[in-house]
Amino acid sequence: MKRLRLELKKDIDRSYDVLVGRGILASLHSEIQRLGRFSSFGLITDEVVKPLVAEPLQNQLRSNSIDTTLIALPPGESAKTIETVLDLCQQLLAQGFDRRSLLLAVGGGVVGDIAGFAAAIYMRGIPYIQVPTTLLAQVDSSLGGKTGVDLPSGKNLLGAFHQPRLVLSDLDVLASLSSEAKRDGFAEVIKAALIEDPDLFSILEKEGADLLNTSNPLLEMIIAKACDVKCRVVNRDEHESGLRRVLNFGHTLGHALEAAANYNITHGQAVAAGMAVAIRFSQRWAGLTKEEAARALDLIQKLGLPTDIPENIDPQALLGPLEKDKKIQAGICHFVLLAEIGRAVIHPVPVNEMRHSLTQIKELRDFNN
Amino acid sequence: MKRLRLELKKDIDRSYDVLVGRGILASLHSEIQRLGRFSSFGLITDEVVKPLVAEPLQNQLRSNSIDTTLIALPPGESAKTIETVLDLCQQLLAQGFDRRSLLLAVGGGVVGDIAGFAAAIYMRGIPYIQVPTTLLAQVDSSLGGKTGVDLPSGKNLLGAFHQPRLVLSDLDVLASLSSEAKRDGFAEVIKAALIEDPDLFSILEKEGADLLNTSNPLLEMIIAKACDVKCRVVNRDEHESGLRRVLNFGHTLGHALEAAANYNITHGQAVAAGMAVAIRFSQRWAGLTKEEAARALDLIQKLGLPTDIPENIDPQALLGPLEKDKKIQAGICHFVLLAEIGRAVIHPVPVNEMRHSLTQIKELRDFNN
Repeated sequence: MKRLRLELKKDIDRSYDVLVGRGILASLHSEIQRLGRFSSFGLITDEVVKPLVAEPLQNQLRSNSIDTTLIALPPGESAKTIETVLDLCQQLLAQGFDRRSLLLAVGGGVVGDIAGFAAAIYMRGIPYIQVPTTLLAQVDSSLGGKTGVDLPSGKNLLGAFHQPRLVLSDLDVLASLSSEAKRDGFAEVIKAALIEDPDLFSILEKEGADLLNTSNPLLEMIIAKACDVKCRVVNRDEHESGLRRVLNFGHTLGHALEAAANYNITHGQAVAAGMAVAIRFSQRWAGLTKEEAARALDLIQKLGLPTDIPENIDPQALLGPLEKDKKIQAGICHFVLLAEIGRAVIHPVPVNEMRHSLTQIKELRDFNN
Repeated sequence: MKRLRLELKKDIDRSYDVLVGRGILASLHSEIQRLGRFSSFGLITDEVVKPLVAEPLQNQLRSNSIDTTLIALPPGESAKTIETVLDLCQQLLAQGFDRRSLLLAVGGGVVGDIAGFAAAIYMRGIPYIQVPTTLLAQVDSSLGGKTGVDLPSGKNLLGAFHQPRLVLSDLDVLASLSSEAKRDGFAEVIKAALIEDPDLFSILEKEGADLLNTSNPLLEMIIAKACDVKCRVVNRDEHESGLRRVLNFGHTLGHALEAAANYNITHGQAVAAGMAVAIRFSQRWAGLTKEEAARALDLIQKLGLPTDIPENIDPQALLGPLEKDKKIQAGICHFVLLAEIGRAVIHPVPVNEMRHSLTQIKELRDFNN
């Protein structure tokens, strides 16, 4: 037998800039030019973002000699299917897009996921830029190259890691967000602070509900700090083999909650409730002090986010989705907990113990009622 | 504006072994164990390969404590669609496959492309092994991590680069191949010799048609040498940004020919004819001597492969598919030519000049008739 070796040991640099500021969409054309030459440009958005951001952006790019083909997807999570991705790819093909074409994903997390996944598989991968237009996407989903779509049986079951070439987050577009969408975004900002940045936590604690005013002058710095947390974690563990899991703080239960609620709860609300439970778990298993737990729960509440599992959801019902969740391996759920504010630890919790704890939450609730 | 940087400069090692030998399927279980621990195993094959190789392999793995779920795809290139990939992913999901499951792609190039692409996108990527069962797949498609499916408007338009963890090529499975399938495989072996390995060329030249006897004792060495060429080229240029293009020797016109013939020609025959034209182009543009060109054409002929575009195809009809081909950029086709046997060069040929040359081929043919 001959044993050959296909050597693929490489020093690969896929680093990219993350720009955060006010009015910076105006400089997108020069940022594109810094990245190199492209054969064509696709501006991928959804029907809601199209008139608000995408069309003005298309005009501005055109006046700077960048002609884009604008493709608007149906809005909302229900569009996050492989069919939407395939339809998008067919449109790119019909427009003659080749391997040197550039996509711009202009929208919230769903647009970023769909356009990013299309960029990942179209002709085995073409470059793309993230232009997130929601706070949630700016501080979380636009960063780190996770793309994907849902299947009827679960979220993000098909996808790829495909890093963007640039992320450009303009705070001016946040003004048109609903209060709910702003609060949703802050769930991820709070998460960033709790897992990795105690200074950011102090700033958030001090500003409180004032943060929901998008003209707050601290917002640029806060968003940049939250982005920086994510950048550092992704740098340590691009493919979520271990360290990146800290980004799942509040998300393991959050995702289960979304499923148990048939997605009649926003992602931010679900993550906030998931963090709240994880904070209580952290007291029990990871040594988080009672005082820090109270401060963390208080901040979640100040920003108008839930600190408990909604009354209409049986806590034990969360185990069904958890058992189907791809993050459970061999009866163990790698739970992200806090040792202190700003320091996350990964704690392997047997599903049995979680079941017990969730039962206690239910019993406590029943007792209180 | 804040300019952050998501740093992703990494030293990544995705090297893998390529095993070539007789009877080596018997050691697949120990090779799998060398790779680590997996939560479950999927043996992906097609209905033709299933009784011949996949079922015996499944039994052998089972007797070595590796239980696989066998999933048989419909056979043939017509199955190479995104629908087949999605159907496969749904089956993996139904079987509870998670991110630590391992797929084994047991079959020809189509099975490898489909299973590899499913492995690339299922839960954002799971590991897989290539167990190619045709000569063509052993020396070419199983190596290098190119996966993908066709769209109605073209081949391999959706896909991903996703490297396998191991390639295991057992020569014993080649005995059941048709003569045509063996010849097809040799088109890629000849290509490997022509672009990169003059020694291999001399061996092929000396053995000639005897190579089509799969019990030829030189075959293991020959296949290993052809694999080695591919490994070296992929090492230099994993994502086909430049150097890997030499692997397209004979393929640019070969693909166009397949399209012009509505795929009523085998891949090997199309590549052989494409190489024959490229050899003539090499004489004209790349300084290949008349003698070497004659030797190269002679070898193609000895192995029962065509050295010309089939009579029923108008050479000029090849330009249509070429213009749609993703490898043409801005009116230039980066053509792989030979400076000498064993040394390929990339020659940017304007599409206009190719049109002229193809017209000459047609005129010459008309004159000879």
